[in-house]
Amino acid sequence: MNSHTEGITILGSTGSIGVSTLSVIRQNPDKFHIDGLSCHNNIELMAEQIAEFSPNFVSVSEKNAASLKNQIKKTNKNLTILEGKAGHIEMAAKSTARKVVAAMVGAAGIEPVYAAIQSGKDICLANKESLVLSGSLLISEAKKYQSKILPVDSEHNAIFQSLKGDKNSSLKNITLTASGGPFRNWSYNDFNKITVADALNHPNWSMGRKITIDSATMMNKCLEIIEAKWLFDLEPEQIEVLIHPQSIVHSMVTFLDGSTISQMGVPDMRTPIANCLGYPDRIKSGSPFLNLADVKTLTFEKPDLEKFPTIQMAYDVLKLGGGSPAALNGANEVLVEYFLDNKITFIQIFESLKNIVDELKIIHQNKNIVEHQYLVDINSISDAINADQWGRNFVKKNIEI
Amino acid sequence: MNSHTEGITILGSTGSIGVSTLSVIRQNPDKFHIDGLSCHNNIELMAEQIAEFSPNFVSVSEKNAASLKNQIKKTNKNLTILEGKAGHIEMAAKSTARKVVAAMVGAAGIEPVYAAIQSGKDICLANKESLVLSGSLLISEAKKYQSKILPVDSEHNAIFQSLKGDKNSSLKNITLTASGGPFRNWSYNDFNKITVADALNHPNWSMGRKITIDSATMMNKCLEIIEAKWLFDLEPEQIEVLIHPQSIVHSMVTFLDGSTISQMGVPDMRTPIANCLGYPDRIKSGSPFLNLADVKTLTFEKPDLEKFPTIQMAYDVLKLGGGSPAALNGANEVLVEYFLDNKITFIQIFESLKNIVDELKIIHQNKNIVEHQYLVDINSISDAINADQWGRNFVKKNIEI
Repeated sequence: MNSHTEGITILGSTGSIGVSTLSVIRQNPDKFHIDGLSCHNNIELMAEQIAEFSPNFVSVSEKNAASLKNQIKKTNKNLTILEGKAGHIEMAAKSTARKVVAAMVGAAGIEPVYAAIQSGKDICLANKESLVLSGSLLISEAKKYQSKILPVDSEHNAIFQSLKGDKNSSLKNITLTASGGPFRNWSYNDFNKITVADALNHPNWSMGRKITIDSATMMNKCLEIIEAKWLFDLEPEQIEVLIHPQSIVHSMVTFLDGSTISQMGVPDMRTPIANCLGYPDRIKSGSPFLNLADVKTLTFEKPDLEKFPTIQMAYDVLKLGGGSPAALNGANEVLVEYFLDNKITFIQIFESLKNIVDELKIIHQNKNIVEHQYLVDINSISDAINADQWGRNFVKKNIEI
Repeated sequence: MNSHTEGITILGSTGSIGVSTLSVIRQNPDKFHIDGLSCHNNIELMAEQIAEFSPNFVSVSEKNAASLKNQIKKTNKNLTILEGKAGHIEMAAKSTARKVVAAMVGAAGIEPVYAAIQSGKDICLANKESLVLSGSLLISEAKKYQSKILPVDSEHNAIFQSLKGDKNSSLKNITLTASGGPFRNWSYNDFNKITVADALNHPNWSMGRKITIDSATMMNKCLEIIEAKWLFDLEPEQIEVLIHPQSIVHSMVTFLDGSTISQMGVPDMRTPIANCLGYPDRIKSGSPFLNLADVKTLTFEKPDLEKFPTIQMAYDVLKLGGGSPAALNGANEVLVEYFLDNKITFIQIFESLKNIVDELKIIHQNKNIVEHQYLVDINSISDAINADQWGRNFVKKNIEI
């Protein structure tokens, strides 16, 4: 609330990234204040966040707005409470924050991100769907409105830090590291025994449920390859994946002089969040510091592309282009939901994703089919959302649950 | 020779760093030409280098000048051949090169480095003695003459790359990695059996003899701590040492947000040399690229400060200040020479270095002793050289050989 501090708005403040962002803000009361917060359902936590951070704007889903108003009416007279998707978009645009942390999960986050970009704010981007669905469009809008896109994802933030000050023409390639998830050492023959609890048991990172399942299928790495392509203006073949089970080296960049620059740290999202919030300066994050003498050993191995077919799908859908990444991502969102609800098995996620990539290849061979134009070309947010929806529908039509 | 290329002068072109520098230049004929070369004794190699690179200046030791002139008189009409230390200094100053690679070994390199700085050239600094003997003076002269000091040492180049674009106020500490040398896993009880051949058998790096012995005693790390203090304007307690036997992570920097940035690569000096020659751009080095999936495992451990007392000496002499680092370095140069000549044992290097640090502590407790003023304060190059000489004399007086 201090006029000398920088305003921050968080889209998705009650989720894992939102809560970590507030933890970093709490470490730096002399630098930041909260201008806006949004969430979907966790009204109790939102009420606590409002009490602690006194935002000017809050946006929650329609069904929860009345309940929230009821809980906080006595204390916050200057608070504007907005509702639903339109409310999230309005807050992203109207907030006076310099930076907006986009921490919503899934394709629902895409429109508020565009609203924030188009109002010239810098984006601390954790919502990878915005880039996966419409990377080319998002990057060109960001350039147009002079909005900086600061990547929060630990891998992309590591690349961002490692690239700093160097030209793209000096770059040989980037390497996204991957823990390999909980099934790295499982035989593929045992994949049919995987339970939801097994898949939620990530070895290193404590994250939301959706992203934890994506980490188990390595679909997360597929989406990260697509994200990296747009964030760093790379050719897909410049993006490599390396299994690194300890999750200490968060990713790296190799230059043509033979230098590989990496960002390392303990697995703690407060570090990349602080890096984005503080950029171009560095601020305290509250994360413990890395002590490699304690860690002792870092290991690296090639990913098993047979066991985890999701990695190759990134290159396939990027090659197809247009709405193919969006369609794949939409399908995956439905599949993860089905898996978490015990409606399908772990292996069915892979099978269904393979089917959709095959279908996309057929569609791209028949580019004259007008009804699928958004799968071939993305010219607007609604094209991206249509492609995402096509992917969701494809799964719903083709999987019996 | 091409007017569109940048001139480079190499002081010490026939040594290990000099030869690697020429290898990088050979990879980039469109970017560089050689303006000057100097060496001490290896006249045959110098004649070959002159034939290949057609420099405008060459400087060699007095005793070898006639022999060189004889070898090359027929082919190079525009070549100026200079002689001795005065020749090296004259070449460093008069060369029209934009960058001077300071690759001479030992304290003999210090005056040509100052001559190059004072003529406003940027320095690719491999001669660590220039900083160890007179770091404070060198850095202030470089600022005065707007000469950039670009570190060639693999560790310092790694720090230089890792710091790029960040403010010192964001820095928590730096970590110099160390292979641990050939005796890392030896019991101290066996140190009395160490032969010259054992000590010259470095596990990872192929380097000159002097620096290879320094690596075996870990005196190299002591000198690097002193170097880092001046290069990066650090407090000694911000400089840590970590044993990393694979020599892949060349060093790292930790920021207050919890990010540790490192530069990695295969152990090949062409990478840091190319980084300095190309700076601020990056150029091809000819070094193979790092493949961590092939390396598989990186390990880290704390250094054994009992077994290798040289590391602590860096903090001791930095605390004493003045000419203490110069004196320690001068003493070490004599001790390494004695050891290589089988005149003293490996353990005698440690013992004698400990004695000199003890003596320096006594001298600093009696700062009024005018004859040792250069050990207390370094105000000129000659102060630094006197301190270095004092260290050499101390060894010569106190060790019977």
